Amino acid sequence: MDFDTLFNAQLDTLKKEGNYRIFAELERNCGAFPRARCHDVDTPDEVTVWCSNDYLGMGQHPKVIAAMKTAIDSCGVGAGGTRNISGTNHEHKLLERELADLHGKDDALLFTSGYVSNWAALSTLGSRLPDAVILSDELNHASMIEGIRHSRADKVIWRHNDPEDLDRRLAALPSNATKIVAFESVYSMDGDICPMKEIVEVAEKHGAMTYLDEVHAVGLYGPRGGGISEREGLADRITLIEGTLGKAYGVVGGYVSGSRAMCDFIRSFASGFIFTTALPPAVAAAARTSIAHLKDSQAERLRQRDRVATLRQRLDQLGIPHLHNDSHIIPVMIKDPVKCRQLADILMQDYGIYVQPINYPTVPKGTERLRFTPGPLHSDADIEHLAQALSTLWRRCAISHAVA
Amino acid sequence: MDFDTLFNAQLDTLKKEGNYRIFAELERNCGAFPRARCHDVDTPDEVTVWCSNDYLGMGQHPKVIAAMKTAIDSCGVGAGGTRNISGTNHEHKLLERELADLHGKDDALLFTSGYVSNWAALSTLGSRLPDAVILSDELNHASMIEGIRHSRADKVIWRHNDPEDLDRRLAALPSNATKIVAFESVYSMDGDICPMKEIVEVAEKHGAMTYLDEVHAVGLYGPRGGGISEREGLADRITLIEGTLGKAYGVVGGYVSGSRAMCDFIRSFASGFIFTTALPPAVAAAARTSIAHLKDSQAERLRQRDRVATLRQRLDQLGIPHLHNDSHIIPVMIKDPVKCRQLADILMQDYGIYVQPINYPTVPKGTERLRFTPGPLHSDADIEHLAQALSTLWRRCAISHAVA
Repeated sequence: MDFDTLFNAQLDTLKKEGNYRIFAELERNCGAFPRARCHDVDTPDEVTVWCSNDYLGMGQHPKVIAAMKTAIDSCGVGAGGTRNISGTNHEHKLLERELADLHGKDDALLFTSGYVSNWAALSTLGSRLPDAVILSDELNHASMIEGIRHSRADKVIWRHNDPEDLDRRLAALPSNATKIVAFESVYSMDGDICPMKEIVEVAEKHGAMTYLDEVHAVGLYGPRGGGISEREGLADRITLIEGTLGKAYGVVGGYVSGSRAMCDFIRSFASGFIFTTALPPAVAAAARTSIAHLKDSQAERLRQRDRVATLRQRLDQLGIPHLHNDSHIIPVMIKDPVKCRQLADILMQDYGIYVQPINYPTVPKGTERLRFTPGPLHSDADIEHLAQALSTLWRRCAISHAVA
Repeated sequence: MDFDTLFNAQLDTLKKEGNYRIFAELERNCGAFPRARCHDVDTPDEVTVWCSNDYLGMGQHPKVIAAMKTAIDSCGVGAGGTRNISGTNHEHKLLERELADLHGKDDALLFTSGYVSNWAALSTLGSRLPDAVILSDELNHASMIEGIRHSRADKVIWRHNDPEDLDRRLAALPSNATKIVAFESVYSMDGDICPMKEIVEVAEKHGAMTYLDEVHAVGLYGPRGGGISEREGLADRITLIEGTLGKAYGVVGGYVSGSRAMCDFIRSFASGFIFTTALPPAVAAAARTSIAHLKDSQAERLRQRDRVATLRQRLDQLGIPHLHNDSHIIPVMIKDPVKCRQLADILMQDYGIYVQPINYPTVPKGTERLRFTPGPLHSDADIEHLAQALSTLWRRCAISHAVA
């Protein structure tokens, strides 16, 4: 049987819709972030990365680099097993303690990725708690959606960032239900921030557990990088805080933090935690060093905020429409998958500016965009080069200047 | 609401059954494998690890260590994004080419773990191929079971390693079904090896796709470490080969390999591939170096086989029952979760021998075991120390000497 025909039929549909993804093949140059070498044809050798989720450039921080190399010399390159079978290294435990401290919780549990932490934790809570109902913000990340789906618990979708809608939906549930309110602090594609206090109060009123994804906030918000929940003084009222080590902290991996019993429960029952090789101890050491640094240092966060504000201001001055929000994410809406890809190609090829077109299914169809994440390492000249390039393209392409 | 009460109730049940897991907190000493420092109370400071899945000790190989550190110096500690959004590094592409070459396939696709590669690939194939039916060996790994479950495709369980049962079940399916036969080469807990040629022939007879998990075989079997499918000359007849970088290769990560269209299909549609931060380039560089080394070098595999044979022989001489199989895995059956934990504790505390008790849900209840994985770095003295310790405990505990 010719299976390739089946595969190609669906790939052709993607291509026709303009949603076929082409990955840029990069080599980030440690010490020269945000510069990277590009291996693609028809592109400059060196490009400036404008869409990294290594938001603060911690991936090249000398302390983090040193910690990872030291741990490799000490423990080798891998963990050698699952957490249960020979794979728990002292570095994993130290990192979990650091994470618990970051969020002021009793304990934390490390996963191989943020995706797996959401998927495994939500599927375990939803499937094992009695009469569980998961109330999910309608714009929650794919990893949460898949976790909820996998749990086969009852699911209720509430309107994005709308505590009143959540209130009504909680009120409609039977009293015996174990209610889990799942939401994010910073939504990565629009960059909007949830009304956390209102959501927490509604959840508390109904005796619901709160499950908060702080993936795009940890390291960036709060005086110690504990996320929006730290900044708003709400961390102690959230049942479970989930985060990543792969964005502001610059490495890879995910985690949940909360009560000792809850972490032990997920540790003991989550298939996606139990049956997988542990992260390399060196990755854990690098992440711990990054977290500890950003607990003390404000410099990276302050500089990032300045860079974000500067780019926003230049876009406004030049009439480039972008979504307004209170975060570090600057979405420039294109609303067409083919144009979005074309603009990204021209920026890369003619200007050495790398920004990945964001198309379906990462965002809904019709909301395609370029998503810029200015960081502390973008210079004034980088910002001006980007703003001028966009301005030139805007005039050339005659794309609507109306604010999206 | 007091959620901890809910969590503790289920944890208490685990504890009562003897299935509550306690992780040993280790520090493997690079350069001194299989020795590790143990941070647990009541244990010797230094222990010998007898249950690692870093089967060949590649996690401390000087070439692999050097490759990882060089890549950190060059690219930093993380990828900085998902594969789509700024996270594809040249090192990922080089590794995927190395993996495709390993299995003689057109292409390969890298995942954050072997668990995720199975879960994501099977859930994507099962959910997107028309009228898909997945025929799953009854002892397949949790990651495959969860992927099949998540796909919501029809599932048919066939008797473990029984091509005749598979044949009957395939024959019973409607002609329009897209049939996917999912199985493993080396089953990790019993160490038995599948009758691959017979399974492939049955699948071909019925026009079924073959999905083969070689996680416990890559690096270890075949002249270049391509697994049992390479050893048996069957790789070109398998549709998809899945493997890991976290066991014989000593690092972390997973992959699938197959036709270009199939890899592109999974790349384009698998949520668990798309929405997650890419592995650090340095992890990819380390894995590639390990794979390349084991393509050429037979020394590690030959020495491992010798160590496995030596331990088996000593166990036989001393009357310690163990499961016979043709692989590198030596299961000593205990068949009781509490005794299994007690024996492991005594080995650790009194003898400095670390072997994790393997209990439910990793193995079915009543088949609890100690699972030994001798490697090239275990000395004659290590083997003798283990054999004598087991012999002493066997006599002391009066556990049945009958072969399981």
